[in-house]
Amino acid sequence: MFGAGDVRIENVPDPVIQQPTDAIVRVTRACICGSDLHPFHSMPADSEGTPMGHEFIGVVEEIGADVATLKKGDFVIAPFAWQDNTCVFCREGVHTSCIHGGFYAANGVGGGQAEAVRVPLADGSLVRVPGSVDAGLYPSLLTLSDVYLTGYHAARMGRVEPGKVVTVIGDGAVGLSAVLAARELGAERIILMGRHTARTDLGITFGATDVVAERGEEGVARVMDLTGGEGSHIVLEAVGHMPAYEQAYGIVRPGGVISRVGVPQYEEAPIGFGSLFGKNITLTGGPAPVRNYIDAALVEVLEGRIDPGRVFDRTVALDDVPEGYRAMDAREALKVLVRF
Amino acid sequence: MFGAGDVRIENVPDPVIQQPTDAIVRVTRACICGSDLHPFHSMPADSEGTPMGHEFIGVVEEIGADVATLKKGDFVIAPFAWQDNTCVFCREGVHTSCIHGGFYAANGVGGGQAEAVRVPLADGSLVRVPGSVDAGLYPSLLTLSDVYLTGYHAARMGRVEPGKVVTVIGDGAVGLSAVLAARELGAERIILMGRHTARTDLGITFGATDVVAERGEEGVARVMDLTGGEGSHIVLEAVGHMPAYEQAYGIVRPGGVISRVGVPQYEEAPIGFGSLFGKNITLTGGPAPVRNYIDAALVEVLEGRIDPGRVFDRTVALDDVPEGYRAMDAREALKVLVRF
Repeated sequence: MFGAGDVRIENVPDPVIQQPTDAIVRVTRACICGSDLHPFHSMPADSEGTPMGHEFIGVVEEIGADVATLKKGDFVIAPFAWQDNTCVFCREGVHTSCIHGGFYAANGVGGGQAEAVRVPLADGSLVRVPGSVDAGLYPSLLTLSDVYLTGYHAARMGRVEPGKVVTVIGDGAVGLSAVLAARELGAERIILMGRHTARTDLGITFGATDVVAERGEEGVARVMDLTGGEGSHIVLEAVGHMPAYEQAYGIVRPGGVISRVGVPQYEEAPIGFGSLFGKNITLTGGPAPVRNYIDAALVEVLEGRIDPGRVFDRTVALDDVPEGYRAMDAREALKVLVRF
Repeated sequence: MFGAGDVRIENVPDPVIQQPTDAIVRVTRACICGSDLHPFHSMPADSEGTPMGHEFIGVVEEIGADVATLKKGDFVIAPFAWQDNTCVFCREGVHTSCIHGGFYAANGVGGGQAEAVRVPLADGSLVRVPGSVDAGLYPSLLTLSDVYLTGYHAARMGRVEPGKVVTVIGDGAVGLSAVLAARELGAERIILMGRHTARTDLGITFGATDVVAERGEEGVARVMDLTGGEGSHIVLEAVGHMPAYEQAYGIVRPGGVISRVGVPQYEEAPIGFGSLFGKNITLTGGPAPVRNYIDAALVEVLEGRIDPGRVFDRTVALDDVPEGYRAMDAREALKVLVRF
């Protein structure tokens, strides 16, 4: 990306092993993330360009001398952050805060929207898919890199469990993933707030029991009405803008939880007596520690119990990635898969 | 209270049963709360005056026709909020949000700093102490009305458990109660941030393993140092002012919890990527649902396993309540007990 709206496919040198803990992965599928649209809107023009993308699956092409758990030819999923999976914070399940970890497309590590990627700390960062992998599973396996498990993180941190009324704010791919995750965790009722019928229809397939198209005060009133005036036990906020947060504390019931996975586009917000404190609301969430959840989710995908790959509604070749950004930004596409 | 700094003892009509669910309680002990100091600082002058106080223990003097679980002569503890203990939010453990409940010293219900109080919804609002009650236990029983269980609420919502590093911000009576509660819940290490040696000494008696007198950036650095740079799993914030909140997110480790019970004296605060979101911090807390915790805590007090009444370091007669406010406000007294 060379600036807002300016995505180009460039030939760059192939990545090479730099550390003995690195692996080189030949990418099979990648995709475009909702969060990639933030720089697509606002990045200052820059003639050097920045690599993009942080979600990919592929085949191990080369490993450094110290990589112990992977070998050439392994089919792997790359969680969107890389980490050692052994430090104190990884052991506590907060892999996105790994002391030795980091993110793709930053600090000399390439992006996932590329034919090949150097993966640091490969033993901790790559998850091997066992057996021979059916190409029909590629989309769902790719969602374990970020989008499905980000939705799952929202539901998990929100402590979704049987009997709970859950409201999901946002009908983007993360919101729909949160619906699916809430269903997997046994939510009794799942209210999806979103205005795009094609998306909310997929939300219903994923388990939403109610759809609320209204926003703002009207949306709050509608959810309160649907819940007999009590509000939602858990609100999964998958947007990141202030109106979504305001909606969240408007509909959460006393003692409830707001779990955010939409990256907040604000720093200050109401958390005092009138918003969170007076009602004993818990606010939680953050960047999903995908590595913490992926082993269990991989089994669910391989056994065909969940099909989170349905969030992809368009596929482009690498050369058409710029068109993919345009289509996602224009909301013509929900989530764009990149094939190689 | 007739305005900031203006507390007077007045003769008012005895309370009478107004609803068949009411009880009249003759107060044995009451006390002054840190939160009573907020109006003591800021209440506009008013010739009518406002009743004060919400913490009391006493003896049931009269009951309404529909009161089923209490009888005249019962010794009772009054949680600081009154509630039906049966509505949906009470059943979910959020008694301070009871649909039919409310607070003392408001809306026609008197305050606890008085010889007698009309208690609405008495079956839900009063907790009977079994057997004959030793006067030596009065202070600890009185803390179950608010202060100890507010500290306990902080620890409980913070999910304190064995193995956790807990930091308590604030050496007031709530902060010290939070120390005691964190010890009861098995915290491995309890760092108490406070500057008043007499108070932090009691904190050490209650279970604090470290005391940090520094505040602000220095205080943050000191806690980070004590925790090997990792930070605290759980921060119990018992102050309510913005600097305490800023300190809290400065010392909490990734994936950790900030649990607030100091009533926030701010509405907006940082909760974005740089403060809470990026580190997956959970923010929780609110007014303690004392009724939800009191049965278990009462057993602990009656069996002598905890002695939370040690937070009272001064006793006044009713006529000296104005002096009690002054002493607490001047930090000469930690918490003032009122005898009758």
